[in-house]
Amino acid sequence: MSANRTAWLRLARTDGVGPVTFFKLIERFGEAEAALDALPGLARKAGRAQAPRIPSREEAESEIAATEDFGARIAIASDPDYPPLLLELDPPPPVLTLMGPLGFDRPSCAIVGSRNASAIGMKFARELAQGLGAQGVTVVSGLARGIDGAAHTGSLETATVAVLAGGINHIYPPEHRELQAEIARRGCLVTESRFGLSPTARDFPRRNRIISGLSLGTVVVEAALKSGSLITARLAAEQNREVMATPGSPLDPRAKGTNKLIREGAALIESADDVLDIIGQLKRRAAEEEGEGWSPPSPDGEAPDDNDIDAVRERVADLLSPSPVSVDELARAASCPVGLVMAALVELELAGRAEIAPGGQVRSA
Amino acid sequence: MSANRTAWLRLARTDGVGPVTFFKLIERFGEAEAALDALPGLARKAGRAQAPRIPSREEAESEIAATEDFGARIAIASDPDYPPLLLELDPPPPVLTLMGPLGFDRPSCAIVGSRNASAIGMKFARELAQGLGAQGVTVVSGLARGIDGAAHTGSLETATVAVLAGGINHIYPPEHRELQAEIARRGCLVTESRFGLSPTARDFPRRNRIISGLSLGTVVVEAALKSGSLITARLAAEQNREVMATPGSPLDPRAKGTNKLIREGAALIESADDVLDIIGQLKRRAAEEEGEGWSPPSPDGEAPDDNDIDAVRERVADLLSPSPVSVDELARAASCPVGLVMAALVELELAGRAEIAPGGQVRSA
Repeated sequence: MSANRTAWLRLARTDGVGPVTFFKLIERFGEAEAALDALPGLARKAGRAQAPRIPSREEAESEIAATEDFGARIAIASDPDYPPLLLELDPPPPVLTLMGPLGFDRPSCAIVGSRNASAIGMKFARELAQGLGAQGVTVVSGLARGIDGAAHTGSLETATVAVLAGGINHIYPPEHRELQAEIARRGCLVTESRFGLSPTARDFPRRNRIISGLSLGTVVVEAALKSGSLITARLAAEQNREVMATPGSPLDPRAKGTNKLIREGAALIESADDVLDIIGQLKRRAAEEEGEGWSPPSPDGEAPDDNDIDAVRERVADLLSPSPVSVDELARAASCPVGLVMAALVELELAGRAEIAPGGQVRSA
Repeated sequence: MSANRTAWLRLARTDGVGPVTFFKLIERFGEAEAALDALPGLARKAGRAQAPRIPSREEAESEIAATEDFGARIAIASDPDYPPLLLELDPPPPVLTLMGPLGFDRPSCAIVGSRNASAIGMKFARELAQGLGAQGVTVVSGLARGIDGAAHTGSLETATVAVLAGGINHIYPPEHRELQAEIARRGCLVTESRFGLSPTARDFPRRNRIISGLSLGTVVVEAALKSGSLITARLAAEQNREVMATPGSPLDPRAKGTNKLIREGAALIESADDVLDIIGQLKRRAAEEEGEGWSPPSPDGEAPDDNDIDAVRERVADLLSPSPVSVDELARAASCPVGLVMAALVELELAGRAEIAPGGQVRSA
């Protein structure tokens, strides 16, 4: 792995460097190496007594080696095998770990839903996945119990992608040990987490963002109100991807979430054909808009000046609260250009004083 | 009953006089009596060898007497107890038979669905009707087995209206004998059919038009594709009434029709509150548009001239086929004013050569 890719991995694995901050730093300093050099100074300026912990070159190389020994590989956002649909996210996950022979060149659709699914819901998800697979669509899901497992099972013989919350070698849930191994052999496992990580609650929304991000659209099959599947649907909508849902009886609590989505405008899905119609329209639209995807940022003369950042940093910090607010809103409140506020936020995140979520919502840390 | 009301009933009960023709004749001749006088001549002119059978004054009076002896009453479109929402239809049913103490002054909602309903579907319909009744909404349905029966049962203690396809004294289906009697005692039975009529297939769409017409909106609970309930939903849409539907699993054939309605834009209904929200919006909108309802037609100087009608009648007849076409389309094809084409159609219907459906679709008879 080149020095640049190792530096990219070290920067991505640094405490307090989320995807937004990652790409802002690349934008400001041009290269991961330069960003790593500047990082301790930035964090200190923004009020952090101790510099954030940057993994050493050896640690990064050891993660790469462990990943490769395990049979997996690391893909950074500029690699050719990095999934193109993820590049459209703002920002993309800087680093992924991939395992399995399946590429990301076919149209793809997520199928997600209740862990505590009904037998009929699982049958529907499995048949839907089979129907999509038969038409050359890759099925993406989260390897959870219930609907996710049924979706993978139905598409195992065609093309299935499972996104994990933990490290590529972390088996979860235990009853899907064999399914996970089978997907690594025939489909593809994907994770944003480092090798060996046991996931905690905060890793699941990050996984959900990748499930929807890898997919032209997301079908929710059975979901209670306030379920993780509805979060995936919301993320899909924020990513301008299609949200689809399977209806159910109002007397079935597992249909409350999907009926709500339909009420709010999600496409009503009764069969693989319904999904294929929508995917077909999306592909045509995408072909017309060809080339609007994300491209790696390049440093330019418009990067804010250090002195300007120093001047606004505390004002921005004071405006933060535990309730998320958009960067635009924050810039309005601070009466500063968005670019300058974002630069200050990056330093505040490095200092452990701000949290920048993908999608642009910010709060105090 | 006044001579005018008796004449109104005779005209409505004349063979070949559908609601459209009925009101066109009233419009052209000013009064039912005058229309009855002109009718044999019109039919003859349009090619009918024998004059259509007009019930005698004695026959009409005997229908009225039998109806009243049975405990029911006849309401013509200009009567004060004629349901106001039906007056908005184009055209309204000229004559109804009503039985029961319930008036038509409250907001009303139809609940219809499969005869072959599931236990859970019937439970939902019954609870929906209860919930609507508790909030002062009259529930309208068609007294059929399954969903209709459940809707009436749930609203029997509050306010329920059953629309019959047959005469007011015709009991159908037999297992709803007691329910029908109970609705006559506490709610209201409504029919467009004459006393004593045993309904045939063609009477059910006429009944469905009144179910949706009596209601601000229609909720379909469980319906297969190609079911009578979907016809009622279509009629509701044509009447500019709200179409609502309860979703169900794609694997449940009884949900195919309701899911289709939702896909096509029907409001998704999971509870009485969902319906009440919509009914509330409709009431507010109706209050803003106060006074736009139908008003009885009055003869005016614009009625087409007899000679003009003679000149186009055969051209119009030649353009008809067994496939329904709109009057507007027909007028375009005939290069004639719509009013003139309609006048010719009325004579052709009297001659048994055309069929004019409420809503304005016309075909050869």
